[in-house]
Amino acid sequence: MSKINASVRDLRKLETLAQIHDAARQLALADGLSSVKIEDIASKANISRRTFFNYFPSKEDAVLGLQSPTLPNGAVERFENSNDDIITRTVRLVVEVTRTTTVANSTAKGRRKLRKHFPELIERFEFRTKSVEKIIQPIVEDCLSRDGVKSPAQEAVVILSLSAAIFKLAYRIDHEIKDESVTKSIKTFKDTLKKRL
Amino acid sequence: MSKINASVRDLRKLETLAQIHDAARQLALADGLSSVKIEDIASKANISRRTFFNYFPSKEDAVLGLQSPTLPNGAVERFENSNDDIITRTVRLVVEVTRTTTVANSTAKGRRKLRKHFPELIERFEFRTKSVEKIIQPIVEDCLSRDGVKSPAQEAVVILSLSAAIFKLAYRIDHEIKDESVTKSIKTFKDTLKKRL
Repeated sequence: MSKINASVRDLRKLETLAQIHDAARQLALADGLSSVKIEDIASKANISRRTFFNYFPSKEDAVLGLQSPTLPNGAVERFENSNDDIITRTVRLVVEVTRTTTVANSTAKGRRKLRKHFPELIERFEFRTKSVEKIIQPIVEDCLSRDGVKSPAQEAVVILSLSAAIFKLAYRIDHEIKDESVTKSIKTFKDTLKKRL
Repeated sequence: MSKINASVRDLRKLETLAQIHDAARQLALADGLSSVKIEDIASKANISRRTFFNYFPSKEDAVLGLQSPTLPNGAVERFENSNDDIITRTVRLVVEVTRTTTVANSTAKGRRKLRKHFPELIERFEFRTKSVEKIIQPIVEDCLSRDGVKSPAQEAVVILSLSAAIFKLAYRIDHEIKDESVTKSIKTFKDTLKKRL
């Protein structure tokens, strides 16, 4: 398949994801989460029930617009070739991978509204955070191993959990997690911890 | 009231809490969370429905054995008078306050089982973590203010979120969060971050 055809297909996939999420969110907010059936979501989004499952594993994920995290093209290379220190690089990787977990038309504001309406869905976000860390952990660990670190697994846990805390502060500064908020959050942590450790 | 009477009353209160939690947990695991009524829990624990609400705000909290966090006697003094650095002191305070959120007969193993059975309850733990941080935040901030720190609120956020990450690692080492696991987790973080920051 040519590259152009592939990217047309990718764009269509993104559109369909957005349509399904929109339908699921609207129906859940209108009728309540437990009343909404996958059939209703599929029919509102003009797809079949079977097609639904090519896009989302569950009704809940469709309502939230959540996808399984993936590694964007070039993310590992950027992580490995950057001149930044490992904490900065890990935070950037957390941001990149977390961005792959939300469909195009899902906004931070929209997700906050859904969390508030359906607190029972918060565990999906918990799971998302854990899935992101699971993808990144071996990448950080490999990098530390190659650098000859003695306990790479343990150091990776520390670096990853600090990076997650930095990510969380960036989210508090600005819910869309713009690059400058990430930079600011990294600086805040570094300045304080350098002084305190 | 004499001190002895007060502590007899405290002990009775702890026993009643444990009884209610036991009854709620057993009923929820046997019949499912949504089928259990507060009346059933109260009757199994030999108390009235009205008394139930003196002990737990909701069915869910009774099932989990979760209490609102409080500051144990002397905890603030220990935090303020310790010779440890502020990160170590904050982690110890997080441990002390988190311990007040579980009733006596709730074990880490039991809570893991409940989380697995009732994933919709995970948001209660999320809420618990946030409540613990809300109690501790002003104590850390005050301490930094008195030390003449320029942005005490911001530094408190950093110290608290690092402390929460250290607490989480201690929990991974040992689910009952023994003191030596806390000490080990603090050391792991410090050693790695001193090198990396």
